[in-house]
Amino acid sequence: MRNLNQDTITQAVIARFAGTPDARLKELMTSLVQHLHAFAREVKLTEAEWLAGIQFLTATGQKCDDKRQEFILLSDTLGLSMLTVAMNNDKPAGCTEATVFGPFHVEGAPHYEHGADVANGAVGEACMVRGRVLGPKGEPVPGAVIEVWQADAEGKYDVQREGLDHAQARGVLTAGAGGEYHFRSILAEAYPIPDDGPVGDMLRATRRHPWRPAHLHFMITAPGYESLITHVFRDKDTYLDSDAVFGVRQSLIADWVRQPDGSYLVEYDFVLAPAK
Amino acid sequence: MRNLNQDTITQAVIARFAGTPDARLKELMTSLVQHLHAFAREVKLTEAEWLAGIQFLTATGQKCDDKRQEFILLSDTLGLSMLTVAMNNDKPAGCTEATVFGPFHVEGAPHYEHGADVANGAVGEACMVRGRVLGPKGEPVPGAVIEVWQADAEGKYDVQREGLDHAQARGVLTAGAGGEYHFRSILAEAYPIPDDGPVGDMLRATRRHPWRPAHLHFMITAPGYESLITHVFRDKDTYLDSDAVFGVRQSLIADWVRQPDGSYLVEYDFVLAPAK
Repeated sequence: MRNLNQDTITQAVIARFAGTPDARLKELMTSLVQHLHAFAREVKLTEAEWLAGIQFLTATGQKCDDKRQEFILLSDTLGLSMLTVAMNNDKPAGCTEATVFGPFHVEGAPHYEHGADVANGAVGEACMVRGRVLGPKGEPVPGAVIEVWQADAEGKYDVQREGLDHAQARGVLTAGAGGEYHFRSILAEAYPIPDDGPVGDMLRATRRHPWRPAHLHFMITAPGYESLITHVFRDKDTYLDSDAVFGVRQSLIADWVRQPDGSYLVEYDFVLAPAK
Repeated sequence: MRNLNQDTITQAVIARFAGTPDARLKELMTSLVQHLHAFAREVKLTEAEWLAGIQFLTATGQKCDDKRQEFILLSDTLGLSMLTVAMNNDKPAGCTEATVFGPFHVEGAPHYEHGADVANGAVGEACMVRGRVLGPKGEPVPGAVIEVWQADAEGKYDVQREGLDHAQARGVLTAGAGGEYHFRSILAEAYPIPDDGPVGDMLRATRRHPWRPAHLHFMITAPGYESLITHVFRDKDTYLDSDAVFGVRQSLIADWVRQPDGSYLVEYDFVLAPAK
């Protein structure tokens, strides 16, 4: 195929994927090429803009390491992450909704007993978190594995702390016989997503703020149920209606209640959907 | 904005870019979000595929260094580079067509006098290259700056040679009073684009070959004319109709003529478009 022009090149590229053995991969590549080219045609992308895009994507990849995932941040801030979550988590009524995974989960978080302080030295006001893991008929899910992670009072996850060699404000618990869980941690606070990289440059250039409303991350797994990746958001947060990553669901907002001793208490029951 | 779903999130993300001061950047981000989301919706992207995409883009960025540009390779193999070239180089009839820039240009190539051997030690059969740089009315363009770069007989550019500390088979010449140029180099051969990275993985998974037909790269600049980024392709090459990066134009294919002494001669006149 020679002399391709802006009207013929898209079909020529798609034809090149005709021999892809995996039907799903062929479908993905075909659609990707169509939409990528449609974008370039719609904006009549200039060569300078093309190069700026190449440089932006390169810098985004190079900002990533074992503790920083700039491409997830990019996906989050462009709404692609939440769109993907929304398309793949159409849960039955009454089940806890999912939201974005985010870039701060790490494998190998420490296991804790009920009542333990998962903060493990992270700075912040004391907060007790408790509730139950249930199935859609209200049945307890004993043994459900509950992983929690959160930022500290300064808006930093442990992996953002240079030189810190142990987990803070993240941990794994196992639900009790009645599906119950409880642990101590610190009060979640609103924080800006890391904006010292290409995604931060994009946010500044477009006058978007980098803030996320205060939240706890949860990932909950149990045999016979769909895995749940979600947040519990803190009520009355300034950024609930302008989350930088579009992740807020009303059903995930809980009351964080100040106790007489100055600490906080948040209670939240998770309802898992049955496995498909 | 809370409770965004797959039908409402795209407009919510676009609204977040409403305050972008630069109108063109706002247009680019708006269109990008629409097409990115349209892709994800069309294929109903799964969370596992989303993660695989994040990992692919991350690896692509991390494969880049000062001598390797994997994102340009990705753009080239998806036809985005050639689409961008085609949209931005609608030159007047008779002017030399443009094609892809590729990932192997480097700044600071050595300057050579006419007749010099730009191969500078690169392996390959001897080849003389000559012609003229002209304007659209046939007028010579004396002083035009001609930059050439090419792969060697083993299909490698100098920047792909570990430990090589000087330029080979690339250089800069200045057109003479009649627009003429001539230099010695090596015979261009077909070669595979670097396929030891994520782009190579993509090509293998989709059963696409990585080969480009033999060519010389040229970038020609002169005051009063549009810069020209193009190739001169070698006639009769096996890959002229299946170039891995979709860059072949019939008008850029030249006869590479074997001489009595066994060396080759290729002649090509470039016709620059007037500056806009």
